[in-house]
Amino acid sequence: MEKNILLGHGSGGRLMHSLIRDLFIKYFDNPFLAQQSDSAILDLPPGKTAFTTDSYVIDPVFFPGGDIGKLAVCGTVNDLAVAGATPRYITAAFIIEEGLPMEELERIVASMAEEAKKAGVLIVTGDTKVVNKGQCDKLFINTAGIGELETAHAPIGTGEHIAAGDKILLNGPIAQHGMAIMAVRNFGNFNTSIQSDCSCLNHMIREVLDTGARVKFMRDATRGGLATVMCEMATQRGLGVEVNEEDVPVDDNVRGMCELLGFDPFYVANEGKLVMVVHPEDAEMVIQTMKNNPLGRDAAIIGELTGNHPGKAALQTAIGGKRIMDMLAGEQLPRIC
Amino acid sequence: MEKNILLGHGSGGRLMHSLIRDLFIKYFDNPFLAQQSDSAILDLPPGKTAFTTDSYVIDPVFFPGGDIGKLAVCGTVNDLAVAGATPRYITAAFIIEEGLPMEELERIVASMAEEAKKAGVLIVTGDTKVVNKGQCDKLFINTAGIGELETAHAPIGTGEHIAAGDKILLNGPIAQHGMAIMAVRNFGNFNTSIQSDCSCLNHMIREVLDTGARVKFMRDATRGGLATVMCEMATQRGLGVEVNEEDVPVDDNVRGMCELLGFDPFYVANEGKLVMVVHPEDAEMVIQTMKNNPLGRDAAIIGELTGNHPGKAALQTAIGGKRIMDMLAGEQLPRIC
Repeated sequence: MEKNILLGHGSGGRLMHSLIRDLFIKYFDNPFLAQQSDSAILDLPPGKTAFTTDSYVIDPVFFPGGDIGKLAVCGTVNDLAVAGATPRYITAAFIIEEGLPMEELERIVASMAEEAKKAGVLIVTGDTKVVNKGQCDKLFINTAGIGELETAHAPIGTGEHIAAGDKILLNGPIAQHGMAIMAVRNFGNFNTSIQSDCSCLNHMIREVLDTGARVKFMRDATRGGLATVMCEMATQRGLGVEVNEEDVPVDDNVRGMCELLGFDPFYVANEGKLVMVVHPEDAEMVIQTMKNNPLGRDAAIIGELTGNHPGKAALQTAIGGKRIMDMLAGEQLPRIC
Repeated sequence: MEKNILLGHGSGGRLMHSLIRDLFIKYFDNPFLAQQSDSAILDLPPGKTAFTTDSYVIDPVFFPGGDIGKLAVCGTVNDLAVAGATPRYITAAFIIEEGLPMEELERIVASMAEEAKKAGVLIVTGDTKVVNKGQCDKLFINTAGIGELETAHAPIGTGEHIAAGDKILLNGPIAQHGMAIMAVRNFGNFNTSIQSDCSCLNHMIREVLDTGARVKFMRDATRGGLATVMCEMATQRGLGVEVNEEDVPVDDNVRGMCELLGFDPFYVANEGKLVMVVHPEDAEMVIQTMKNNPLGRDAAIIGELTGNHPGKAALQTAIGGKRIMDMLAGEQLPRIC
């Protein structure tokens, strides 16, 4: 293979076919992709199907705890899983800047393959575009995903059954992804103690759903952080949200980096953190189930829903005050995912 | 709304929510999107499902006969339709350069909505990322799509039933899309007589399939042009391909532009042209059916499959010679789709 990506790798011709064969089919290896048709033909079981997409433009493409490829698989797997679906099939569409070292692309593709295998999803179809140098920044990846949904779990994605008194759960410490990226951007240090939490949550979510717990809503707290999910939940469902700051786990190093750079950890992006709203009687059982999975080791009940202040999310602060959490008005961290 | 796209429109916060509400939901209006969940929850009928994706990076984003939004809908609709599927649901993921005029984004979104309506597909979920000025070129769009497949049509996408003697059909003149783009890029003239053929072929394909004709393979001739599809067919199925140059329709203006700029029309991208391989007894019926649709008005039988020279695609030239068509080695037209 060539040492660097050429415009010809996006031409539809000989170079593109060799890239598909020697890189994508080699690593993603499965019978759907091997057909080299523009569409993968799937046999889905009866029932509902979840369908999602996300593009990833993270800078830098390699970061402590992951890379853009791992992130692209985890993000889409998590979007399906928080809808209550079992992720099954994903696509991988690459927009590559001319000149990208082939070795970097190969590491990223290998990382996608590894993460897809762990999550139990197949990468069944894709696309490659190459743009001239300077017309994109290294590499953007889009993944779309299909998941199978048991009808019983259908309304989890919209949370239409949540009610006052339900508990709000979180599977671990916040702000790690965003602060890992900011550490690298600001200090260029990959040996930082802060690692992105980028990970596929679908197996942990399945373990929780299999307990039969009354899970009423799930959402992964990505761009906009935990606060944004709290605001969305309050406004979309017309309930009040109460979060206890002291109950929200934040790693000490992450908190230090947030203070150093002037960020509020509640608004910093996560890529392996999940908000779950659960019937109060089932909350402890769900926490225990989460704790049995390494991705939920520090799971905590962080608050509850209330009939007070409908449409508003309130934070009970550690120093005894109360403040309203609002959505970010502008951009805090461009290209964080 | 703001006059230009800001980084904050990709933040996950307030600006992004208003963009989703005031632009995407407004134009794409459907109950799936209105749920504002990360996954759309679909009810697919029993049977096979086709799944595809493509990213669009075309430059310029507006061109004679279309724009990047129309193209993004048509391309994915066509990829599903040539697999024999009925396109149903698509995603729309935007990577936007900071500073893009909101008015341009709105025109593109309106164009996507219009084309989706014509094609009979719903845009059910999406994603928005904004990158800093200079880190992408105006706008890239990814669409992924789901189509429903009658099992009878299942092997059309791979062409595993094609045989020597089958006829090769084309629905109209080639090279229009690529040359429309090149005309604008080179001469900046939107009043050119050359228009892109960008269009959704799913209804015309459905009309053909509904005749009961023995359609054995379909592929849209996009990047790499007609020649690339001929080469793929020959190598993937181990048959010989014979195409008669005189039977392949090329518009006179397009031919002139190709000569002026030094392009071979057989390798120039199309966005509304379809190669169909049909049992010889059904070929005339299919041509008549295509001709009844405006998108197939100039449909023609352009060649056939043969047991001779397996794996090779040969062109019988207008001047009486014969030449082997090969895949493009490098890139002819970067960012043509």
